[in-house]
Amino acid sequence: MGKSEVSTGMFITLEGGDGTGKSTQAALLQEFLKSRSIDPVMTREPGGAPGANEIRELLLTGEPDRWDAVGETLLFYASRRNNLRLTIWPALEAGQWVICDRFADSTLAYQGFGNQLGLDAVKPIHEFAVGSFEPDLTFVLDIDPATGIGRTQGRAHNEDRFEKMDLSFHERLRQGFLTLAELYKHRCVVINAEQSVEDIQAAMQQVLIERFSL
Amino acid sequence: MGKSEVSTGMFITLEGGDGTGKSTQAALLQEFLKSRSIDPVMTREPGGAPGANEIRELLLTGEPDRWDAVGETLLFYASRRNNLRLTIWPALEAGQWVICDRFADSTLAYQGFGNQLGLDAVKPIHEFAVGSFEPDLTFVLDIDPATGIGRTQGRAHNEDRFEKMDLSFHERLRQGFLTLAELYKHRCVVINAEQSVEDIQAAMQQVLIERFSL
Repeated sequence: MGKSEVSTGMFITLEGGDGTGKSTQAALLQEFLKSRSIDPVMTREPGGAPGANEIRELLLTGEPDRWDAVGETLLFYASRRNNLRLTIWPALEAGQWVICDRFADSTLAYQGFGNQLGLDAVKPIHEFAVGSFEPDLTFVLDIDPATGIGRTQGRAHNEDRFEKMDLSFHERLRQGFLTLAELYKHRCVVINAEQSVEDIQAAMQQVLIERFSL
Repeated sequence: MGKSEVSTGMFITLEGGDGTGKSTQAALLQEFLKSRSIDPVMTREPGGAPGANEIRELLLTGEPDRWDAVGETLLFYASRRNNLRLTIWPALEAGQWVICDRFADSTLAYQGFGNQLGLDAVKPIHEFAVGSFEPDLTFVLDIDPATGIGRTQGRAHNEDRFEKMDLSFHERLRQGFLTLAELYKHRCVVINAEQSVEDIQAAMQQVLIERFSL
């Protein structure tokens, strides 16, 4: 395994609200890339690196009012900074592909739109932590929020701080992701996540094949 | 005890490098204010509120390279946001005085000057988390860094991540604090921290008496 013969490493992110199936799709993408002799580094946010994982626990557990949107934004970007510095950038520099389950679009959508801080308020924090770096390809998994949240209810886990937000939050979140997908359409592809797992994966693989000549 | 009869709550911060005696002086200021029938809320950064204290542990323990300066800046401001939202602002709104052992000038000095991110890089993060709010009075305790760091060596504690930075870091830090004291001279008073504990405290009390007509 190892680096692809035909291309340098690509940075692929999966974005979308809760219950869109990002983690499942990320694992399937990993298998697909392996079938093409590419062994991607798998990471997720918040988390993905030492330090970042401790911040993940602070962010995702506890009551909704544990942090306000300003505090959350700072914590998400602090976590992201370690994931970039310790995991993503070293992998890309070594020519590896990286698949990240959530990245900066999630903070822009959750805190900028869901929590209504506004994109312009969050952008200076993004610039400070991420600079001009961006994914080569972002899949935005789009689903009706009521359906997505319904799917998360069956999960046994305590990382449910954002799932506890009300439905209007999740509706703003969806519109936020769609706005970002339009703003950054050079790298974003919206995928209908109300399809079956297999159909979603097929759509994503098709994009990969076309974009990266796999 | 409780609120002063003669004034609304004031927000007083103590700043300076490691080993300048800030915590000791904060406790003595508390006693002094109590003698004037003012019972101040005592807080410190990083920390001072739920959530902020967990971030304190992430920041102050471990090896120097656990976070880079960008990640640190985001974490310090995330901690500060909770201290403002849950401790400082509610106290001031209730008319109480607040004494804070370190506040935003520490992040501007440590990450902006010590770590050389630059004041202009850190300011957008400050604006995002703190806005235009500022202390009514800031004491900048100034000491030769070699003397200050020497004083911290006798302490038995594990919150020594910044003390482990090299002497050139602490020299930039000192110049950073002095630069901030000049930039924000409407609220900053530099105190020579090479004096005895009693003389430092007497100088600080004199400033309080004059500024706030105590």
